[in-house]
Amino acid sequence: MRSYKVIFQPGGLEVKVQPGNTIMEALESAGISADFPCGGRGKCGKCRVKILAGAEEPTAIERDILEAQELAEGIRLACSTRINRDMTVQLPNYTHQHNILTSGKKIFQIEPHLKKILVEVKKPLLDKQYSDWRRLKDSLEQHGYNGDALEVPVSLVRRLPETLRKANHRITAVMCGSQITGIEEQDTTGTMLGMAFDIGTTTIVGYLLDLYSGQELGVVSMLNPQTRFGADVISRIAFANQEEDGLAKLHAAVLEAINKLIREAADQAGVDKRDIYGVSIAANTCMHHLFLGVSPRYIAVAPYVSAVSEPLVASAAELKIDINQAGKIFVLPNIAGFVGADTTAVLLATELDRSEEVKLVIDIGTNGEIVLGSRDRMVACSAAAGPAFEGARISSGMRGAAGAIDHVYFRDRLEYSVIGGGSPLGICGSALLDTVAGLLELGIINKRGRILPFEQITNTKAHAYKDHLLEHKGEPAFLLADAGKTGHGRPVMITQNDIREFQLAKGAMAAGVKVLMETCGIKAGDIKEVLLAGAFGNYLTPHSACVTGLIPLELESKIKMVGNAAGTGSKQALLSSREYRRAAEIAGFAEFVELGSYPKFNSIFAECTYFKQFH
Amino acid sequence: MRSYKVIFQPGGLEVKVQPGNTIMEALESAGISADFPCGGRGKCGKCRVKILAGAEEPTAIERDILEAQELAEGIRLACSTRINRDMTVQLPNYTHQHNILTSGKKIFQIEPHLKKILVEVKKPLLDKQYSDWRRLKDSLEQHGYNGDALEVPVSLVRRLPETLRKANHRITAVMCGSQITGIEEQDTTGTMLGMAFDIGTTTIVGYLLDLYSGQELGVVSMLNPQTRFGADVISRIAFANQEEDGLAKLHAAVLEAINKLIREAADQAGVDKRDIYGVSIAANTCMHHLFLGVSPRYIAVAPYVSAVSEPLVASAAELKIDINQAGKIFVLPNIAGFVGADTTAVLLATELDRSEEVKLVIDIGTNGEIVLGSRDRMVACSAAAGPAFEGARISSGMRGAAGAIDHVYFRDRLEYSVIGGGSPLGICGSALLDTVAGLLELGIINKRGRILPFEQITNTKAHAYKDHLLEHKGEPAFLLADAGKTGHGRPVMITQNDIREFQLAKGAMAAGVKVLMETCGIKAGDIKEVLLAGAFGNYLTPHSACVTGLIPLELESKIKMVGNAAGTGSKQALLSSREYRRAAEIAGFAEFVELGSYPKFNSIFAECTYFKQFH
Repeated sequence: MRSYKVIFQPGGLEVKVQPGNTIMEALESAGISADFPCGGRGKCGKCRVKILAGAEEPTAIERDILEAQELAEGIRLACSTRINRDMTVQLPNYTHQHNILTSGKKIFQIEPHLKKILVEVKKPLLDKQYSDWRRLKDSLEQHGYNGDALEVPVSLVRRLPETLRKANHRITAVMCGSQITGIEEQDTTGTMLGMAFDIGTTTIVGYLLDLYSGQELGVVSMLNPQTRFGADVISRIAFANQEEDGLAKLHAAVLEAINKLIREAADQAGVDKRDIYGVSIAANTCMHHLFLGVSPRYIAVAPYVSAVSEPLVASAAELKIDINQAGKIFVLPNIAGFVGADTTAVLLATELDRSEEVKLVIDIGTNGEIVLGSRDRMVACSAAAGPAFEGARISSGMRGAAGAIDHVYFRDRLEYSVIGGGSPLGICGSALLDTVAGLLELGIINKRGRILPFEQITNTKAHAYKDHLLEHKGEPAFLLADAGKTGHGRPVMITQNDIREFQLAKGAMAAGVKVLMETCGIKAGDIKEVLLAGAFGNYLTPHSACVTGLIPLELESKIKMVGNAAGTGSKQALLSSREYRRAAEIAGFAEFVELGSYPKFNSIFAECTYFKQFH
Repeated sequence: MRSYKVIFQPGGLEVKVQPGNTIMEALESAGISADFPCGGRGKCGKCRVKILAGAEEPTAIERDILEAQELAEGIRLACSTRINRDMTVQLPNYTHQHNILTSGKKIFQIEPHLKKILVEVKKPLLDKQYSDWRRLKDSLEQHGYNGDALEVPVSLVRRLPETLRKANHRITAVMCGSQITGIEEQDTTGTMLGMAFDIGTTTIVGYLLDLYSGQELGVVSMLNPQTRFGADVISRIAFANQEEDGLAKLHAAVLEAINKLIREAADQAGVDKRDIYGVSIAANTCMHHLFLGVSPRYIAVAPYVSAVSEPLVASAAELKIDINQAGKIFVLPNIAGFVGADTTAVLLATELDRSEEVKLVIDIGTNGEIVLGSRDRMVACSAAAGPAFEGARISSGMRGAAGAIDHVYFRDRLEYSVIGGGSPLGICGSALLDTVAGLLELGIINKRGRILPFEQITNTKAHAYKDHLLEHKGEPAFLLADAGKTGHGRPVMITQNDIREFQLAKGAMAAGVKVLMETCGIKAGDIKEVLLAGAFGNYLTPHSACVTGLIPLELESKIKMVGNAAGTGSKQALLSSREYRRAAEIAGFAEFVELGSYPKFNSIFAECTYFKQFH
């Protein structure tokens, strides 16, 4: 089923919404708490929101309750407006002086890591020949800093005399704790921007944010250029270890990408990249290490330890990040093994650490990270899902880009949707999932994943798809689009081997879920919510995920999509030093289960590759 | 009069001693407190010292008191051994476990800025997959560090995995406060060296020290290569401001010199420069700024403020100093104006800040710094002595190097000593001073500095020098060595103009002393000691300094040479973090008088250029 994207401002939280849902329902499913005094019956008018983009004609209730002026400005009622297109919604009730950001169930206070302070430095006098730095220090003491504890880099001292005099002793000091990281002529306190990154194995996403208001000024993304050195983390680690300058090449590639995205985001938003002072990095453990230029070698061999998991704050110059050189890079902490800072960010955004109820959080990307628990205990694991869900190793597979079939519907006849419309070029993970689910329900493939010969298929509904069953290079296959209908003139299909790949991937994920449930002594019935994060997690059809056993069947009604929660968590850590500290607590609190060393893991995994609710 | 050099170990304090003095007298004049229970009468044998170099035959008293074995090892009595050659003396009573260093009147505890800690890092386990950094942090916590406060640079994290594994998890952490600046394989705690520098306008001196024992392993020095851009601070500041890349050239020149001296010192001592972890820098304000790469521009124009005077600690990498990259550079604080960190170091070494008695401290180099006071109040000024005392702008002038006449004696006939022996090539500052003093006493020059025509000289003793009076290029001159006796075949003489230059230099110094005395309300009679530091101060003849009025006449008996006190202070700041903090207190406590803005300074200066006790 098609869904629409709703972005809530300030903060830029992005959610997928089923067509026809109200904004109120969208808020609820996004976990944003809001007051609906009349219970959402369109009587009190308290749930006013402003539609910034995608507004439609007001409803009768809205015409009745709202002023003409309000209607003209795009003010609507969250309980009344239904979502029938992509929308951007401003939430006035949550914007107390542009100082808080909605995310998850709670709101958090923006507490910038860096501060800009306008100081009027005293001019030097013949009878008080205090040095430039001393006078600046004195001014900062007026602002509550302890002069003796202040740290200043030599590079800044070098610029101090001219900066002071050019600006007639009125300058802006950029502070990070007791460290003075920058000095700027005159008053630049009005602007402070930041970029929150989520560095995935396949995709890098960056969000340009106003560090004062939390407002999102732009989103940029690109393919991780490291993919040319290997599709998944294991092949990248091998490249880093075995190739000459392998680590340096991987490090340079991601740095270049980050700097390119920073330029792009600044250009698109019409801002100066030198106004960017903070960058947060959420990434899986391998991407985290490669970003830092640290060898990921020992993550891949027992006992699978990282070089560093703890939060790291470094200067922009030290990490060669092309923002204001007074800026800082805030690297989120990893949990353990392959469960990296991206998972920490997902937990930050989904607030599992504050949840009274037991929830299952799944972030499916090239790797799959699973966390089960509540504020009492959280247990995490990483399932080597492999890149099957991102289209790799699938005969017609491709990423979820334009031309990819993203959803498949087995109605009277086979229907599918294509990203961006037009003729299909291949299938992405969510379509693979839909197809396998559909074929299972039709009895076309059996419990073991075998595509049955047509004569063995007992479900009569399957007869409608007889023409789709064919043989391709000696193995059975299921045709989604024949050559005449595709953009490249080749058929798009799913082969027996594709189904085997799918089984390995879903088996790994399902086994991970099973091990965590065993570890915590939790049954599926105890789980109150399943939160799906990551690109694949947000595009998949929950029913298909449950039919195939990727997610336990009984949890279908509890599935909730939480968008790019890793990106959201990265934003939180960028906007709030308190949230960044919370990330460290989460990373320290979450327990880690190494699946490879879990007793009988191999048999659990093997069992999970089957579709056990079928014959 | 000839003097000998005595070096006291550990610590390397160097003093000039009059021939025939005992080591006891040398200790006293160096301000080193020592116990002489029998009052130095050669009865108790408690003042045993070991002569490391320059030992002579034992005295009768020593033969009586000391064992044959001791005598053979070079053990002598400080009260009995007379100094008739250069010596190096080990002071066993002051070497409590090689942990304290003698300097000035007090002894100070060695308290290294950096610490090396041998840590046995736990190996990672499958059920405790703590990151490398986490495990190192845990180990450091065992050593009393607060893990949460520890800071680690990314460059170190990059090396951590391999370092740990190559060393089988036994590594040495280099710590500076809560910052971990280095990691080294296995146990390297046995060695930690440092270099203390005194960067003068003309000369750079570096001392290689053992940071544990304080022992001096070598001394290196060279001409400051910046002299090719200008002889004094004013011309260097002009070069920095006006020439293209002037500042960068001056900065590069001093850095290159420092790195060359570090290599030289390490090579000479047969140590690895990578075992050097600390460098201290004492320098005048201009040299201080040029070392840091900071423009000295505003020191030279009213209101004469520096960019930074406060203590600065920077990493070796940040300042491009070629020692172990875990090392730190400790820059001593300036006082104000041209009174720089070299003066702070002199005060650290001479302990004026702890003196109950009023003392006058004079450091005469290319610039002259003067401090008057006690622990109750210290007032400092800088006198633009100009480079006359270092031989510049003097017709036969040269630095105090081989071939320079360093002392002149007006006996039956003119005698002089030449540095290094051999034929003279010119005169250095101390010989200029001796000559002017002698000519004044002989009545050859008058109160106003004029060389009188022979017929106007009334002192009959002057008649012996008739042949030395001549005319050179139309002005009167005094011949020291005629062309036949010099190394280059040109006469060495002092011209009328040289005397004018001398008058300007001594006038500036004397005016500085006068202003400080006026400021403090102190008369010459109140001053208990005059401490002379710096190369010129240590070579000059006190009588000549007082005859010419460079130092008030009544203070002649109170003059004490304190060697390169700036170098000694630099060493103290390197060896002891407490002494480095004391340097900051001194720099903050000392008051500064800007001579240029002192009321009637010009007339005081003019008056001081005369030789007022003469006619």
